[in-house]
Amino acid sequence: MAQLDPAILEALAAIVGETRVLTDESSCEQYGLDWTRFYTPAPSAVLLPGSIEEVQAIVRLAADQNLAIVPSGGRTGLSAGAVAANGELVLALDRLNTLSDFNLVDRTVRCGAGVITEQLQQFAEEQGLYYPVDFASAGSSQIGGNISTNAGGIKVIKHGMTRDWVAGLKLVTGTGELLDLNRGLMKNNAGYDLRQLAIGAEGTLGVVVEATMSLTRTPENLAVLVLGAPDMQAIMHVLTAFQAEIELSAFEFFSEIALEKVVAHQDLQRPFETVCDYYALIEFEQPNDAAMEKAMALFEHCVEQGWVYDGTVSQSLSQAQNLWRLREDISETITPWTPYKNDISTVISRVPEFLAEVEAVVNQNYPDFEIVWFGHIGDGNVHLNILKPEGLPIDEFKAQCGEVSTWVFEIVQRYGGSVSAEHGVGLLKKEYLEYSRSALEIEIMKGIKQVFDPKGIMNPGKIFDA
Amino acid sequence: MAQLDPAILEALAAIVGETRVLTDESSCEQYGLDWTRFYTPAPSAVLLPGSIEEVQAIVRLAADQNLAIVPSGGRTGLSAGAVAANGELVLALDRLNTLSDFNLVDRTVRCGAGVITEQLQQFAEEQGLYYPVDFASAGSSQIGGNISTNAGGIKVIKHGMTRDWVAGLKLVTGTGELLDLNRGLMKNNAGYDLRQLAIGAEGTLGVVVEATMSLTRTPENLAVLVLGAPDMQAIMHVLTAFQAEIELSAFEFFSEIALEKVVAHQDLQRPFETVCDYYALIEFEQPNDAAMEKAMALFEHCVEQGWVYDGTVSQSLSQAQNLWRLREDISETITPWTPYKNDISTVISRVPEFLAEVEAVVNQNYPDFEIVWFGHIGDGNVHLNILKPEGLPIDEFKAQCGEVSTWVFEIVQRYGGSVSAEHGVGLLKKEYLEYSRSALEIEIMKGIKQVFDPKGIMNPGKIFDA
Repeated sequence: MAQLDPAILEALAAIVGETRVLTDESSCEQYGLDWTRFYTPAPSAVLLPGSIEEVQAIVRLAADQNLAIVPSGGRTGLSAGAVAANGELVLALDRLNTLSDFNLVDRTVRCGAGVITEQLQQFAEEQGLYYPVDFASAGSSQIGGNISTNAGGIKVIKHGMTRDWVAGLKLVTGTGELLDLNRGLMKNNAGYDLRQLAIGAEGTLGVVVEATMSLTRTPENLAVLVLGAPDMQAIMHVLTAFQAEIELSAFEFFSEIALEKVVAHQDLQRPFETVCDYYALIEFEQPNDAAMEKAMALFEHCVEQGWVYDGTVSQSLSQAQNLWRLREDISETITPWTPYKNDISTVISRVPEFLAEVEAVVNQNYPDFEIVWFGHIGDGNVHLNILKPEGLPIDEFKAQCGEVSTWVFEIVQRYGGSVSAEHGVGLLKKEYLEYSRSALEIEIMKGIKQVFDPKGIMNPGKIFDA
Repeated sequence: MAQLDPAILEALAAIVGETRVLTDESSCEQYGLDWTRFYTPAPSAVLLPGSIEEVQAIVRLAADQNLAIVPSGGRTGLSAGAVAANGELVLALDRLNTLSDFNLVDRTVRCGAGVITEQLQQFAEEQGLYYPVDFASAGSSQIGGNISTNAGGIKVIKHGMTRDWVAGLKLVTGTGELLDLNRGLMKNNAGYDLRQLAIGAEGTLGVVVEATMSLTRTPENLAVLVLGAPDMQAIMHVLTAFQAEIELSAFEFFSEIALEKVVAHQDLQRPFETVCDYYALIEFEQPNDAAMEKAMALFEHCVEQGWVYDGTVSQSLSQAQNLWRLREDISETITPWTPYKNDISTVISRVPEFLAEVEAVVNQNYPDFEIVWFGHIGDGNVHLNILKPEGLPIDEFKAQCGEVSTWVFEIVQRYGGSVSAEHGVGLLKKEYLEYSRSALEIEIMKGIKQVFDPKGIMNPGKIFDA
């Protein structure tokens, strides 16, 4: 473990209190790693500030002493954006976990960076409102981290990413100064929108310490439809047909292999008997009978066109939840196969050919690899999962998957896609950033980091090397 | 008029062709001014490039020769963002007016910067889709300009600003390099979202030359409801009640004085006999009878609560259009009074007290000033209009309004509001920027400009002085 000068430890303790400076091995391991694994945590200390002023004081001290800081939320990230492997100070926002200043007219609430996503969702529900950004780690991830990775999830097609729900943002820059950006305004065209830069910056421009989050109307009687389709192109036709007439809140997809595994390993039934190559899960509001009639007419149209072979619709909340599990339980189901995972996107219309190209190159080189596809097809974001063949040593599998990554990212580049649709870049995808961003873009990003963080102490080495 | 070195004029002609370099007085007047007026246009030349490559060549030449460039769209701006008053080169994007690469699955279309807003709206309609950003100058404003000022308008409450419809953006930086940002992706968390910076930058970071714009589902059978309320606080209650149950596409307001003038000067009738202090115009989709039943139940609830005194609902498209004119014709109606105008915002909930404070200070100091309020109350954006009293010389009125501006912006600052909700800063509001943005924010903006435009040739003097 990296050692800090005792005088610095003392100065840090003077800021946050002695019990809020952790240097024991277990704390350093816990706070030095996110859900990415693969890395060895090695922070020099973990700090738990209790106020924005304490965060500022820590950053000023770190700037003065040239100490690197890793801002730390729920550490549920999957690109190692919150990993501290090089003696950094971990600045954990856990204690800034207050919800305050709720306003029903503005439909906003002020959140400390350490507020858990689920805490915000539940708070919204108690007010008769809704926070629509939702994903598997909502029970652990924190708002500050969500903002820093611009978290997406399963409702993006209607509700957008975390970016769309940040009405105000407080950021402590690399010099310890506080920016109070946009202050909850819905309309503000007075100069550059710096808030947008901090969103998705993975802590490299400063520490997100607080946000004013927007809430919205609670959806009415959500219905879920699962359809089976002969191929990906048919899925795209279904998407286009439904979107033309209904405001969908989700349009997810998964493959037959994914469905087989989920049904075999969870306490779930197939949605219908017909076996299809791909399935779409469609969610929409059903405030009255007319909405369902419209959906059923669309379903029949899709069947007539040959785009859909079979389908089922939820008749109750519990049925809707069970249909959702067919999609949501895939990730957990395949964990025992220690899958290689990749989170990529293209424009929506090119997903079918993109999938086919990736499959072709993997099948050609590694015919025994089993590919499990699922994802948010309605927004072009697919999750590629390759299961480790039984008997293949894990190290060998990982080495082969390294090769796969390069092929996949070369295809992503040719399609003008993104090497990270929603998980961010962090350490994990840093070396692949150039497949999605030009040399000039990366140079400009570095220039912008220099403006916010002249000493380069904010989460250094994440996204790019300075 | 500013004179350019003949060798430079020749070099510019070699790039765009001789007939695309205009230096005659009438062209310079036309292209040197936007709808703000007040300024004396004095560009050194007007250039009409026909391709992105030509734009790049012009910018490279300008950077080499240290010549300032003013990017120019429809010049419908109201903050003098497109004014060329200091011998700048006007780079007019008129000829980059092609719509291409429409994709029905992605629901996107590629637009040259010079595409007129209405052209995009009509194109969308022809494809059975909808471009929802709409405002009074849609017949002249260009997409590049809309993006550069992040244009808002009358549907922001549901559809957001121009920012929300830019899926991809091509920007020529101050060094003449081309950034191809986001390429139409719905999900892309691979590094800073530089696209967001260019949106609303008023041409100070580079020239927006092309954008991939998103389109959406066409709204079904829009209904319009006009309600009369006793005061602004009641209007806020009505907003909250309706938003809790219906996805509104507009929530506008206007005062009795505004209504009186519109009815007196346009061929329009009062919506109902009851005279109220304030009126709300509410628009929503009515795909079936249930939607209208819900709206009527909400209306009755509002009447019972004493928030609404009277109301009327459109029974046909033409009735809906006439109700909209009560709000949309205000601006034109009051033009003969050469009104002082200001476009400001606060968080929505504070609008009533904000309006009261502004009225109090104006009434106290200038009791003969007539104030006309209207605006987009659903997003906190109000338009303040003060009519020139008959007999008061225009210069004296302008001087007095200068004082009013300072009072208004001091109130804006105390409310944490914006000195420019949707019109941008340009030259007109530059000196007031500090009422909405901190010294540190302005310093960071300047640092960012330096990264994109190291020579400071892109629309210098707009938003801030470098």
